[in-house]
Amino acid sequence: MDEERVYTAAVLVIGNEVLSGRIQDANLAFLAGRLKAQGIRLREARVIPDVDSAIIDAVNTLRAAHDYVFTTGGIGPTHDDITAECIARAFGVALERNPDAVRILEDHYGDELNEARLRMANIPAGGALLDNPVSRAPGFRLGNVYVLPGVPRIMQAMFDGFRHTLAGGRPLRSRTVTAFLPESQVAEGLAAIQARRPEVEIGSYPWVRKGRFGAALVVRAVEASDLDTVSDEIAAMVRALGCEPEITEGESAPPPD
Amino acid sequence: MDEERVYTAAVLVIGNEVLSGRIQDANLAFLAGRLKAQGIRLREARVIPDVDSAIIDAVNTLRAAHDYVFTTGGIGPTHDDITAECIARAFGVALERNPDAVRILEDHYGDELNEARLRMANIPAGGALLDNPVSRAPGFRLGNVYVLPGVPRIMQAMFDGFRHTLAGGRPLRSRTVTAFLPESQVAEGLAAIQARRPEVEIGSYPWVRKGRFGAALVVRAVEASDLDTVSDEIAAMVRALGCEPEITEGESAPPPD
Repeated sequence: MDEERVYTAAVLVIGNEVLSGRIQDANLAFLAGRLKAQGIRLREARVIPDVDSAIIDAVNTLRAAHDYVFTTGGIGPTHDDITAECIARAFGVALERNPDAVRILEDHYGDELNEARLRMANIPAGGALLDNPVSRAPGFRLGNVYVLPGVPRIMQAMFDGFRHTLAGGRPLRSRTVTAFLPESQVAEGLAAIQARRPEVEIGSYPWVRKGRFGAALVVRAVEASDLDTVSDEIAAMVRALGCEPEITEGESAPPPD
Repeated sequence: MDEERVYTAAVLVIGNEVLSGRIQDANLAFLAGRLKAQGIRLREARVIPDVDSAIIDAVNTLRAAHDYVFTTGGIGPTHDDITAECIARAFGVALERNPDAVRILEDHYGDELNEARLRMANIPAGGALLDNPVSRAPGFRLGNVYVLPGVPRIMQAMFDGFRHTLAGGRPLRSRTVTAFLPESQVAEGLAAIQARRPEVEIGSYPWVRKGRFGAALVVRAVEASDLDTVSDEIAAMVRALGCEPEITEGESAPPPD
């Protein structure tokens, strides 16, 4: 692990069911939180359909641009599960029946292992299997691309099984200064602080609840001392506007409706 | 409206707070459902940070590839709201203080209109304002790019105000055949039907609930007759496997946990 290096990642959500509005994706939010804790910056996410050219293009663009790519979806037993085949084509390698994956499926399914389930043992040549503690059919890693299932419960268990192997840099810390003021009142002071402190990222997220206006002012920094200095400056600016801020570690979500 | 033309769209979610895991995006699911009803195919979505080069590149790539682009986020009064400026740069036009937008803000804020709020009247030259019935500060359309706020309640109200102006093709209809069988048992039959019916899109979405396996087999087609034929074929295939399917209009979500 190189302490000074910034590690970046992209997430690629593969699935017509997200673009058709059938389901709301939940995998991006999970991966975003886990990668942040691991010291890896999630820089981009894409949602694409089950179309081979779209998958191949996106995988090749993202794996060239980032340290890590995580795909979700499209690795089941049916005709619309084309992710493994597309990853093989993106890397220019063969899609092979992986003997270790076959053994895992044989152990799990016994006499109920059929040809459709065996499709889940088709892995690009050179792919390293990722353990699936829930439903056994493995994911895989090829180069810097981690290929995960779309069902959130299974994806999460698989990710948590290998996340200790992901090299990251120093985690981005964050702290939230909540101001019970319209965002526009803090805008000028906040812009001045951001201009003086380019090494820190400051986000302003407004909310309205029961007629009350507020803004979560989120500071993100690698250095704890930067986090302290900048969140103190923001809190002082809010106090100067006549409002006592609330300060919480992390990125606080808006108050409930 | 050209009945035979396929209209496509992309969604661009702009915001560090989605990539940091602070919030789970809900705008994509809303837009996906609305666009489907409008006869517009959502082909791609991207989530990118509040970084000018990332916004400009994504806007220019997506607006060249699709009939419509919808952006969400980054049009408030604070320093991290850079979407309008980036859209202007993407199109190579000036960012101007729009007199109609100023008037809207003057009417709404009166004496409380400050310089930060006036930033929300900075609109790329040639941009047409989009009405905001909730908090007044307008969005805008430039060319085929619709620039919307990130707060879901406001974004939804704005979208519903102009959606009747979006030309679309014939809507994609869908029907769900739910099989109470493991996905692997229907895989072979389903692949055979898909191979015979390339004009129809068939998706298979497995679920497990309280130890019971099932799969939502979703058929998507423009022609009602194709929808009937293919969903009947799938239902017959499921019955031949000894299971009485449930048939529902639309894309049914998995049963609750």
